[in-house]
Amino acid sequence: MARWLPSLPILEWGARYDRESLTGDLVAAVIVTIMLIPQSLAYAMLAGLPPEVGIYASIAPLVAYALFGSSRVLAVGPVAVVSLMTASAIGQFAAQGSPQYWEAAIVLAFLSGVLLLGLGLLRLGFFTNFLSHPVIAGFISASGLIIAASQLKYILGVKADGHNLFELLQALARKLPQTNLVTLAIGLSALAFLFWVRKGLKPLLVRVGLSARMADLLAKAGPIAAIAATSIAVWGWKLDASGVAIVGKIPTGLPPFTLPAWNPVLWQQLLVPALLISVVGFVESVSVGQTLAAKRRQRIEPDQELVALGASNIASSLTGGFPVTGGFARSVVNFDAGAQTAAAGVFTAVGLALASLFLTPALYFLPQATLAATIIVAVLSLVDLSILRRTWAYSRPDFFAAAGTLLSTLALGVETGLIVGVTISLALHLYRTSRPHIAEVGLVRGTEHFRNVLRHTVAVSSSVLSLRVDESLYFANARYLEDWINDAVATHPQLKHVILQCSAVNDIDASALESLEAIAERLYLAGIALHLSEVKGPVMDRLQKTDFLRHLSGKVYLTHYQAVSELSPEVCAAG
Amino acid sequence: MARWLPSLPILEWGARYDRESLTGDLVAAVIVTIMLIPQSLAYAMLAGLPPEVGIYASIAPLVAYALFGSSRVLAVGPVAVVSLMTASAIGQFAAQGSPQYWEAAIVLAFLSGVLLLGLGLLRLGFFTNFLSHPVIAGFISASGLIIAASQLKYILGVKADGHNLFELLQALARKLPQTNLVTLAIGLSALAFLFWVRKGLKPLLVRVGLSARMADLLAKAGPIAAIAATSIAVWGWKLDASGVAIVGKIPTGLPPFTLPAWNPVLWQQLLVPALLISVVGFVESVSVGQTLAAKRRQRIEPDQELVALGASNIASSLTGGFPVTGGFARSVVNFDAGAQTAAAGVFTAVGLALASLFLTPALYFLPQATLAATIIVAVLSLVDLSILRRTWAYSRPDFFAAAGTLLSTLALGVETGLIVGVTISLALHLYRTSRPHIAEVGLVRGTEHFRNVLRHTVAVSSSVLSLRVDESLYFANARYLEDWINDAVATHPQLKHVILQCSAVNDIDASALESLEAIAERLYLAGIALHLSEVKGPVMDRLQKTDFLRHLSGKVYLTHYQAVSELSPEVCAAG
Repeated sequence: MARWLPSLPILEWGARYDRESLTGDLVAAVIVTIMLIPQSLAYAMLAGLPPEVGIYASIAPLVAYALFGSSRVLAVGPVAVVSLMTASAIGQFAAQGSPQYWEAAIVLAFLSGVLLLGLGLLRLGFFTNFLSHPVIAGFISASGLIIAASQLKYILGVKADGHNLFELLQALARKLPQTNLVTLAIGLSALAFLFWVRKGLKPLLVRVGLSARMADLLAKAGPIAAIAATSIAVWGWKLDASGVAIVGKIPTGLPPFTLPAWNPVLWQQLLVPALLISVVGFVESVSVGQTLAAKRRQRIEPDQELVALGASNIASSLTGGFPVTGGFARSVVNFDAGAQTAAAGVFTAVGLALASLFLTPALYFLPQATLAATIIVAVLSLVDLSILRRTWAYSRPDFFAAAGTLLSTLALGVETGLIVGVTISLALHLYRTSRPHIAEVGLVRGTEHFRNVLRHTVAVSSSVLSLRVDESLYFANARYLEDWINDAVATHPQLKHVILQCSAVNDIDASALESLEAIAERLYLAGIALHLSEVKGPVMDRLQKTDFLRHLSGKVYLTHYQAVSELSPEVCAAG
Repeated sequence: MARWLPSLPILEWGARYDRESLTGDLVAAVIVTIMLIPQSLAYAMLAGLPPEVGIYASIAPLVAYALFGSSRVLAVGPVAVVSLMTASAIGQFAAQGSPQYWEAAIVLAFLSGVLLLGLGLLRLGFFTNFLSHPVIAGFISASGLIIAASQLKYILGVKADGHNLFELLQALARKLPQTNLVTLAIGLSALAFLFWVRKGLKPLLVRVGLSARMADLLAKAGPIAAIAATSIAVWGWKLDASGVAIVGKIPTGLPPFTLPAWNPVLWQQLLVPALLISVVGFVESVSVGQTLAAKRRQRIEPDQELVALGASNIASSLTGGFPVTGGFARSVVNFDAGAQTAAAGVFTAVGLALASLFLTPALYFLPQATLAATIIVAVLSLVDLSILRRTWAYSRPDFFAAAGTLLSTLALGVETGLIVGVTISLALHLYRTSRPHIAEVGLVRGTEHFRNVLRHTVAVSSSVLSLRVDESLYFANARYLEDWINDAVATHPQLKHVILQCSAVNDIDASALESLEAIAERLYLAGIALHLSEVKGPVMDRLQKTDFLRHLSGKVYLTHYQAVSELSPEVCAAG
């Protein structure tokens, strides 16, 4: 198959599918299905969409990923951060609960799918490298905090909204007196139970004799228990009559067939949010996929993952869903439960379709506060402020990128926050590489080696300046070299020759070439010759295609010692 | 003086000012004044402003630059590209000729001045490195073409406008039948005369015995002759009655004192254009200043230049002017005419103030077509499409940056064009560095050297993989290393150890550290140890501040040979 065509990994594992794989995949699918029912409802609520949309978004995308994905165990569907970004993107154009809102979510999934597919087919996965780790870490932590804060209203049983963390907390504070105490009791109980399940249940199960893996899987069923218990409480005590908000009637049936509404203005306005969602979703998904693949010495292909996530999002938009990506928790459960191939995803999709057909009436009395509690417990694990401490110790520019992203996301919302973060990290990278290390070097007596004059006792000549540049030359540092040499010339009145030792220069781009030409011309006007030494082969090949070497007032020497012994023999003779 | 305070270069040269400097400066000032009168009018017309504004913008800025500038000979004032950018920025918010238009120009100069001053005081000059040479070259050439096209309407004597080259040419084509033939005759004569002055007059003067420098200076007076001749023709033959557009009444008097109008919406909308104008103006100005300073072995200080250009633009905005910067032609004339210090600029300002007081009535009959001809001849020297040929031969990414900037500026206008160019060059830089050279290396038999297995016959072990990374590791290439190692592990089934030879790694940022941690963990899960060798001192110091080395499953070796001889002694023994 031609290299530019996406492959169909299903052909590879499908041909070798056997009974053992089938058992593993079926068991995993049952467990993941049970876990995904509450998660799908909760993330739809977070995205501001009706609960059934969360289930729709968990069915077709799983099948699409099974066809195209290069990971055997990645489970795609709605995830917390992407759901928050969806709510933020659509909230600007439509009111939550309106038909336009759902329509816009479908358009957003479609655009995101097309962008991912395009990046994958054009093999532009490197583009996602714009997002540095500190930016992602700051962004995810901030998103976790915003999501947790956005769910507090359901725990309190009040209405409160805001575009950023501060607006949200303000709105909550104002509504605090209207708290519904029954709702609060349910919410706090669910929170306490879920935290205990996470921290206390697993050790307990291990102590009573279960294997660590089984204990882990059982602990993952905690949300189901919370949902069952609180639903029964609401139903038995008719708590909905006391103002406890419940999920209510969820339409039964398979996902509808939907087409993204053709609305050029909306499409244009959603393009940047769709791009940001795609990149964030892809980066998260690939990192999960790579970690799990490595455990079995398998590998995933990032460009193929772009294609698969693109197909998943398009599948979501065609079946009434919203943007999806590979989720961490569900993929780990899938892996631990023994999924062998992507068929587990297809079986999970079947399970969810059955749930969507028959199970939704059972969720009528499910309190929104319980769903909010499951979200809060899930997202607090995303909040990891240690990135600030670690980058502060390790690298200040990275600290500023992380802290800048965190604060601007909290204060200005997810989209602006992410854009600010990318801008900071790009600017800091350019700043860092814009001042390469340049050393004036001199001859170590008795050798042919040259060392920094500031650190070693070396021989130099007043008419010859030897400079070593420790970096490739490109547009961001070209002018720095010009300035450096201008300075050096102004402070060396007897100068006749400048020699650039290029042993560490792996590349000279067109901007740096222009700078070298400008340097050479200015030196020539001042009666000084410019020479080069130790130019690497590939760099020399490119320079020979230009006029630079022909116009150079000096020469190109193979070694720096040759240059110095010809231009200031007294230095070498003295050595 | 504290390093963060801008200096006052005037204190340095002012203290040593003598009679010889005075003579040089006075002569230069007279010549530059004569040259600047038509230029100021022409660039004001290009910016869409009344002609006197061009003279206003040439007085106070010269004085401000004389106080703060680090170049002795740079002449600031309105220049072609900045005038075009001014027209483009303001044209979106006000109609040419309206009082709002002039007000917005004053605000634009003020904002640009504040931005330049801020960048200078914060020593953020490096920020302008975002503009690579190919982007500038493409942008300046495109601007030259747009400017020339925008002046054709004055040569034809019709009205035609457009936001980009294609709209402009379309509008001109539609209006062609309405051409005023008398205006066309004046315009074409002026064009022909000015081209001849540029190409033919100087050799002629040299042949009749003038020095090359005098011939150059006399040729620079060509526009004055064209202005005098065509003004007299219009006056004598009453050509204005035949529809020849003339400059008309220019108010006499000194520049007014103006304050930028306080209009937050306008300020916000002009911020990005002001930033782009500042950066383009600064880059052009510094390059002129450095070239001229080098001829006399002087130097200029880029951060100080930011302060000086900032002060010049603020001075312009306080005296009814528009954005200014250091101009190439006028600075060269100033230099060639013998200017010794920045006092020449002050004398030029006095000359222009006198012209503004007494000379403007003499310009009443000056045809606009003549001014347009002087602009066209001046800007065609900016158009240099050889950048495309040169970058195509030298470096394809640079070619795409230049061509992308050129085309998008022509098609989408100056602001979008510049932003597209910067985006392309950043993206290409990240792409280029996102795929560092990584080589699997093996032992050259009988030595302790390791070389690329693809290029040399070397000894390797099936259980130990030696990789050399030829680039610093940072966010844009961190994931590439992850992918590379994932691939390598998947294709080496018997692997037990991976050793990264870090001799060419000058930096590891936080993203790359995370990637190394992920690589180490994935290798560990697959039962493979990760080792490092030849880590540079500063990089090692930083790594030691983290948990990475403590969690590393392998070791850090001083030399790669040590690592291999410990991990696969059979390879070294065989050698």
